[in-house]
Amino acid sequence: MLQLSLPFLVSPQAKRPVIRSDFIHEKRPLNLHCLQLPPSLFISNSQQHPYPTLPFPSPATQSVAAIVFGDGSESRLYPLTKRRSEGAIPIAANYRLIDAVVSNCINSNINRIYALTQFNSTCLNSHLSRAYSGIEGLGHEAYVQVIAAYQGGDDKGWFQGNADAVRRCLWLLEEYPVSEFLVLPGNHLYRMDYQKLINAHRKSKADITIAVSSASRNHDPGFGFLQVNSKNQVLEFRLRLEEKPIDFVSVKSSTNFSDIAPNGFPSMGIYLINRQTIKGLLEEHFPTANDFRSEVIPGAISKGMKVQAYVFGGYWEDMKSIEAFYQANMQSTKNANLGYNSFHNIESPLYTLPRRLPPTLITDAVITDSVIGGGCIINRCKIKGAVIGMGAKIGEGVIIEDSVIIGSDVYIRGDFQRSGMDIPVGIGKETQIRNAIIDKNARIGKSVMIINKDHVQEGDREADGYVIRGGIVVVTRDAVIPDGSVL
Amino acid sequence: MLQLSLPFLVSPQAKRPVIRSDFIHEKRPLNLHCLQLPPSLFISNSQQHPYPTLPFPSPATQSVAAIVFGDGSESRLYPLTKRRSEGAIPIAANYRLIDAVVSNCINSNINRIYALTQFNSTCLNSHLSRAYSGIEGLGHEAYVQVIAAYQGGDDKGWFQGNADAVRRCLWLLEEYPVSEFLVLPGNHLYRMDYQKLINAHRKSKADITIAVSSASRNHDPGFGFLQVNSKNQVLEFRLRLEEKPIDFVSVKSSTNFSDIAPNGFPSMGIYLINRQTIKGLLEEHFPTANDFRSEVIPGAISKGMKVQAYVFGGYWEDMKSIEAFYQANMQSTKNANLGYNSFHNIESPLYTLPRRLPPTLITDAVITDSVIGGGCIINRCKIKGAVIGMGAKIGEGVIIEDSVIIGSDVYIRGDFQRSGMDIPVGIGKETQIRNAIIDKNARIGKSVMIINKDHVQEGDREADGYVIRGGIVVVTRDAVIPDGSVL
Amino acid sequence: MLQLSLPFLVSPQAKRPVIRSDFIHEKRPLNLHCLQLPPSLFISNSQQHPYPTLPFPSPATQSVAAIVFGDGSESRLYPLTKRRSEGAIPIAANYRLIDAVVSNCINSNINRIYALTQFNSTCLNSHLSRAYSGIEGLGHEAYVQVIAAYQGGDDKGWFQGNADAVRRCLWLLEEYPVSEFLVLPGNHLYRMDYQKLINAHRKSKADITIAVSSASRNHDPGFGFLQVNSKNQVLEFRLRLEEKPIDFVSVKSSTNFSDIAPNGFPSMGIYLINRQTIKGLLEEHFPTANDFRSEVIPGAISKGMKVQAYVFGGYWEDMKSIEAFYQANMQSTKNANLGYNSFHNIESPLYTLPRRLPPTLITDAVITDSVIGGGCIINRCKIKGAVIGMGAKIGEGVIIEDSVIIGSDVYIRGDFQRSGMDIPVGIGKETQIRNAIIDKNARIGKSVMIINKDHVQEGDREADGYVIRGGIVVVTRDAVIPDGSVL
Amino acid sequence: MLQLSLPFLVSPQAKRPVIRSDFIHEKRPLNLHCLQLPPSLFISNSQQHPYPTLPFPSPATQSVAAIVFGDGSESRLYPLTKRRSEGAIPIAANYRLIDAVVSNCINSNINRIYALTQFNSTCLNSHLSRAYSGIEGLGHEAYVQVIAAYQGGDDKGWFQGNADAVRRCLWLLEEYPVSEFLVLPGNHLYRMDYQKLINAHRKSKADITIAVSSASRNHDPGFGFLQVNSKNQVLEFRLRLEEKPIDFVSVKSSTNFSDIAPNGFPSMGIYLINRQTIKGLLEEHFPTANDFRSEVIPGAISKGMKVQAYVFGGYWEDMKSIEAFYQANMQSTKNANLGYNSFHNIESPLYTLPRRLPPTLITDAVITDSVIGGGCIINRCKIKGAVIGMGAKIGEGVIIEDSVIIGSDVYIRGDFQRSGMDIPVGIGKETQIRNAIIDKNARIGKSVMIINKDHVQEGDREADGYVIRGGIVVVTRDAVIPDGSVL
Repeated sequence: MLQLSLPFLVSPQAKRPVIRSDFIHEKRPLNLHCLQLPPSLFISNSQQHPYPTLPFPSPATQSVAAIVFGDGSESRLYPLTKRRSEGAIPIAANYRLIDAVVSNCINSNINRIYALTQFNSTCLNSHLSRAYSGIEGLGHEAYVQVIAAYQGGDDKGWFQGNADAVRRCLWLLEEYPVSEFLVLPGNHLYRMDYQKLINAHRKSKADITIAVSSASRNHDPGFGFLQVNSKNQVLEFRLRLEEKPIDFVSVKSSTNFSDIAPNGFPSMGIYLINRQTIKGLLEEHFPTANDFRSEVIPGAISKGMKVQAYVFGGYWEDMKSIEAFYQANMQSTKNANLGYNSFHNIESPLYTLPRRLPPTLITDAVITDSVIGGGCIINRCKIKGAVIGMGAKIGEGVIIEDSVIIGSDVYIRGDFQRSGMDIPVGIGKETQIRNAIIDKNARIGKSVMIINKDHVQEGDREADGYVIRGGIVVVTRDAVIPDGSVL
Repeated sequence: MLQLSLPFLVSPQAKRPVIRSDFIHEKRPLNLHCLQLPPSLFISNSQQHPYPTLPFPSPATQSVAAIVFGDGSESRLYPLTKRRSEGAIPIAANYRLIDAVVSNCINSNINRIYALTQFNSTCLNSHLSRAYSGIEGLGHEAYVQVIAAYQGGDDKGWFQGNADAVRRCLWLLEEYPVSEFLVLPGNHLYRMDYQKLINAHRKSKADITIAVSSASRNHDPGFGFLQVNSKNQVLEFRLRLEEKPIDFVSVKSSTNFSDIAPNGFPSMGIYLINRQTIKGLLEEHFPTANDFRSEVIPGAISKGMKVQAYVFGGYWEDMKSIEAFYQANMQSTKNANLGYNSFHNIESPLYTLPRRLPPTLITDAVITDSVIGGGCIINRCKIKGAVIGMGAKIGEGVIIEDSVIIGSDVYIRGDFQRSGMDIPVGIGKETQIRNAIIDKNARIGKSVMIINKDHVQEGDREADGYVIRGGIVVVTRDAVIPDGSVL
Repeated sequence: MLQLSLPFLVSPQAKRPVIRSDFIHEKRPLNLHCLQLPPSLFISNSQQHPYPTLPFPSPATQSVAAIVFGDGSESRLYPLTKRRSEGAIPIAANYRLIDAVVSNCINSNINRIYALTQFNSTCLNSHLSRAYSGIEGLGHEAYVQVIAAYQGGDDKGWFQGNADAVRRCLWLLEEYPVSEFLVLPGNHLYRMDYQKLINAHRKSKADITIAVSSASRNHDPGFGFLQVNSKNQVLEFRLRLEEKPIDFVSVKSSTNFSDIAPNGFPSMGIYLINRQTIKGLLEEHFPTANDFRSEVIPGAISKGMKVQAYVFGGYWEDMKSIEAFYQANMQSTKNANLGYNSFHNIESPLYTLPRRLPPTLITDAVITDSVIGGGCIINRCKIKGAVIGMGAKIGEGVIIEDSVIIGSDVYIRGDFQRSGMDIPVGIGKETQIRNAIIDKNARIGKSVMIINKDHVQEGDREADGYVIRGGIVVVTRDAVIPDGSVL
Repeated sequence: MLQLSLPFLVSPQAKRPVIRSDFIHEKRPLNLHCLQLPPSLFISNSQQHPYPTLPFPSPATQSVAAIVFGDGSESRLYPLTKRRSEGAIPIAANYRLIDAVVSNCINSNINRIYALTQFNSTCLNSHLSRAYSGIEGLGHEAYVQVIAAYQGGDDKGWFQGNADAVRRCLWLLEEYPVSEFLVLPGNHLYRMDYQKLINAHRKSKADITIAVSSASRNHDPGFGFLQVNSKNQVLEFRLRLEEKPIDFVSVKSSTNFSDIAPNGFPSMGIYLINRQTIKGLLEEHFPTANDFRSEVIPGAISKGMKVQAYVFGGYWEDMKSIEAFYQANMQSTKNANLGYNSFHNIESPLYTLPRRLPPTLITDAVITDSVIGGGCIINRCKIKGAVIGMGAKIGEGVIIEDSVIIGSDVYIRGDFQRSGMDIPVGIGKETQIRNAIIDKNARIGKSVMIINKDHVQEGDREADGYVIRGGIVVVTRDAVIPDGSVL
């Protein structure tokens, strides 16, 4: 709350007959050469407490640290997660999924960001370190510190859940003087100004504030449902719709807005928790709880803590399946105000690793409703409704429709290592691809048909280089699809 | 709460009896799945106007760009300025003089900084580019863009003054949507929170606000004197104390506080000027004016513009002479709250180029009231009241008192180029140095006495590697002082 | 010459009956715990002079510093040079012209690069600082130091030519222990491995080696012509073909290969000059010479110095006119091994400023033989033989043929500053552009025809936002072309 | 001409009477304007195979990737390893232990470095990412990629040893075209030019080359012992001195140099292994082996692979105990050519995270044989034989002898979090410290005596904030030692 730092804010003193209250604006030590002014001309700032609720002389959001979980689950987006965690999955040609949440933090002036990772984390760690790391920063430069799961003296095991992960890292998380922690899943796609969430939290003097989605009311994203009243106080919490709710006794008498959201709002898994509250919950009250959603949050409710909801009405997509991932990519190809398509947004830009890619070279293509990353080589072909990722090579006569081509990074490291392999990285001549996802560095031969010809919904042909999920063919990373194959 | 910063939000709904003011916090487009809520459930925040004068949805200081002048004058600090501009002079062992002003900007959240340079600017340009440059930044990362004097199509000459320099660069300065420009000399040493200056400026709805020093009242730093009233309105402006003041007719009736500062306050040469005002002054009203102090500011007064003063009470030192530079260094050696000695200040740190220096190795030294930079090699010696800069090498039996040793960067590039030269970079054995400044990479032989033995006040022995200014011996950069010399 | 550092190289000593000459590979001081071995088992390295021709323990190219001139001439590429120097002109969608030469240096392991600039240099300085600057580097990281023209104590004027510029900066250029300087024009487009040039230079023990182009034999790029013999010794040098040659008396008896290149080879303006030679030429022999081509090189010949040629057979293009610039861009759109089109070259990549651009969004386009930069928004249109630069916005129904659209950076800073201006940055609906160059941030209205309808060869309509050069319409930077205009 | 760096290049062609072999130096495609030269004037390079053993056009060391293990063991250096891995332990005031090995790589032109970490790795990962990460690099910029242990689809467990770690990461390590992997422990202190090791390896056409220490002959660093002949062929390998050696049958007939090193040389745990060899060993021959030393290397010997030794004679210290760590620090305080004290070495600098620390302020100190990091505040005190780390604060009347003060980073994050704690970070007034290590951010009260008064050799008082190892008191990180304590 920037305005609190302004010395001329209305205060009781301001009404006193002070002659020159703003005469000296700076509290720096006076120079010895300075003539002594009559003391009555000065006003002391010592009793003004310009930061009554904030012990630190920084903007509101600088006293919040974000804790981002980059992992997600292995199985939901398999095989995209075979060698990478969910947060590292490429999306919309130029980005990684976690860029959305990290960019939200940066655009909300939250510059202290911890990313906790453990599952297939190498790629994600590398991306975060290179895209968002800095050398001690200048002023309020954003900085992401990756905390990969590690073996410690006492606890030799992996993180057992997000609450367990935070508990084990508390010694580190506590080092900086933040007043709240913002717990964030790293694999969701949305734009939120966390400043508003933080301000609502502080205004309501809550212990915990949970973001809920008013736009996804009928879905069950898996983080539970909250029934709230008109003041966004949480009345009930249910892990699942069918389950018995946990009541908030203290606010039971308030108006119930069940007419607006009969089932309550689904939680987005985003928790803003006061520093002392998180410490107390994890170390004292529930020292063995592993999970925020099912253990710590219900526990806090049962302890009578003040839990508020923050209702978010914007686009919000949890990448809960290959299909959801596919749809989010498809939305990025639309030049309209639907979904998370505002990749050209100036006010809240989406950050990622800066790159030195060559321009995309197009020989002769008809391209419709598509996004194209840098460094592609696109020969005579037809592309419709596609996401063409960085470094993709597309041969003569290719037809791509409604598909995601993740591209290739062989520019950077050359395409050497499989000598004797006849099929180069990219999409071979006369190949047709529809409703498919082609993962990185795949080698699709000539005259291949990736069209799910048998209309399979779910299929596992991983040994052959692909699986089918929700009717979408996913060609795996580094897969080789021989010439003439029909998938 | 970002929306609060948008003053132009005014909607009829604001007056309606709204029930759920905080229901929807985000203005993102509604998801199609979303149930339509009754419009009466929304409330406008339009009456809250905390930033009534700011048209941009960003923190106050983000809409200000700083224009820093790195050059200063050649002659005042000669010979320290022989190969560098004033802003590039090393100070307090680890810093360059311009770091103070750039750090003020960063600590005041002013992240768009232009440095205009032309005199001996190579060293300064290199320092600024490496210390403060970045790749498109993350969020609000600070960024300094160096604008070296250049030949253009129309104007082939050098910058003729600070106003001329700004005028010629206006095409570039205008590119970003800032509302005010903050004009800053780059060779002053002080800590100021420019946010306070900016807020005072906006509150007073001034066209121009000039910072004045209440602590340097009896000096003439050369930027003129302002007589102000109790509301910090400028009543009079005089270029020099003895000169006839320029009256501000419009505010003449206000109370004159001549009892506090009979001569008025000296201007610090710091001007906050509205975007349209600076454009009008430089391009329309005074298209041939070269200097802000003597032409543009008096001209603005004569045009009846609203000029305010911002009274600054802290330490402020204009490096107007070798002696002032020497004293500022001496103050940095004191562990007390005098001067600009708070180099260990956490709240408003002093930034500079990050370095990978080895630790300082001390064989056997008695060190009193001194600051020591990184990478020094200090043998058996006695150091008292000294600033020992990075990479200094100090031989056996040396005595250094009340002196500034700027050090050496031969680590980085080796000490090769003067083969046949017997005296290595550094201070030779049994040498004594008092009240002196030893510039970078000087080679002081053995048993040298740099003590100003003849008590010369001003002397020019540049061919012999030194000059004397105000009684202080200044050994020039790369100078060689033979064994046994007595200076 | 790396091999010299290998201790097992065959050397006279190696034939002595040394028992274990390679027993101790490292010259580190022995640990005190070490048992004393019989001295006869060791061989001293002290007389081996491992770097007989190189005084510095570094790879060959590390002892060479490049001096790049970024400016070129204002007039040749005007109006592209109105606000930028030649080296800063965008080329091939993602690059600046100077990236070609700097990348040559990096790919040749020349990591110490000085860029001397003075004409409209702001944009170039900023690009170089951000793209190639670093913090003290790790190992052999490339580093470009910009040396903008500056006023010094003695010399207040601008650089009077490339020789004058080098002379004035010699104090700085000399700081590092390089053995040769490589003087490079910064506005040429070619790929050269300077290592080969350096090795040829050293092998021939030349004082100066000049690169000449065997592929541009019939052109006069303006750097003079050299007649060479079979050992690449220079026999004659002529400033222009019609001029009288300067003979190299000493090599006159050698075979003249005039049958291969009757006029000799054109110089590329690339000079590799020994450290002592350049110093002697500029400071002693020709202290008032301003230009290498017409003064220093002929002077060196007349002094009897050994001048060699290095014959380069690859693509080399001097951007000597708008047409040459246009053609070089057109060549970048061809997916064939002609010209400098290998932007996707892995072995010798082209570097530039890394960027975080969104992907390019294409609604419905037919694109032929074109390169497309990042962050474009391309609506229903037809693009053929075009370079579409970063951030270009192309409206519905547009037809672009054989043109260069430089694009826009309004993403970065928003498109605000010309409120009231109806035409947004980009290409408006139904506009047709042929054989044109559209400079940055131009605002082309709807239904505009940029087709040079009157087949003008040279025309100046700068007040209307364009000029015509060699039949190519150049719409100037920030120009506004109203709806319906026909150019 | 890179091939010149490979001394073993000898080709028959070189002797043929070639007419103009150097006429065309570049293999770029010829420009169409080029006159056709008679084919006989050209010589084809196609049969020359300039890199017969190297398939990649890069300097020798660019085809080597280093695999650094940052962890070491928890117990050897406990409690310094309580919150960090061995590689992250601060050493010599400004560095982390792992900087020595990474700097060796950089100085040896090995720019592709993988750091495998799993134990208490957060601090190490953060250090490596910030100090050695880069954005796609420029040319040969060094780059460290941290591979933290992660859970994968198939293997859920932690790395079971260094061989297991490499095996699991092979999919990633294989991405770049390197010809050998250099396996390096990250917790050793030494300077080695790995180029020499690599050249010896290639010259001998070995499968594996193991570095052995001739200077540590009587120690058992735990990596086994190698008996070698005069050609550095390995004759025997013993895991421990007392164990039965593994014979190398094939070289048994060679001369045995047991007179020089009766027990053979201790292995340094440094292995250079050919790409195909490491893949074969880990995946085919010994797919369950966890450890290089005890399983993979003996296995390779038993398979009859060619294993060579590289004898290294320089200082080499394995940080095998608190005492060894203490001694290495003590050596850094000596200004002599002993041990690894050459922190001011220009030729092979020691890299680390660049920092923006203020200079060290010394009020009144007698300092002998000590190294001092940046940003310390040293009051009236006596320091002898000490390493004073970054940000240390030392009170009035303190005496420090033969001790390591690791310092503090509270500058960066402030000293807030333990409000109510009376003892500030640093060393309190009148405290005496001898033969001790004070870990980071410890709070030593006033008049404390840390002198091991009872001459304890091993002691565990961790609850009281310290332990004793080899007679050295180690005050743990963040420990609080109350006023007047006697340890």
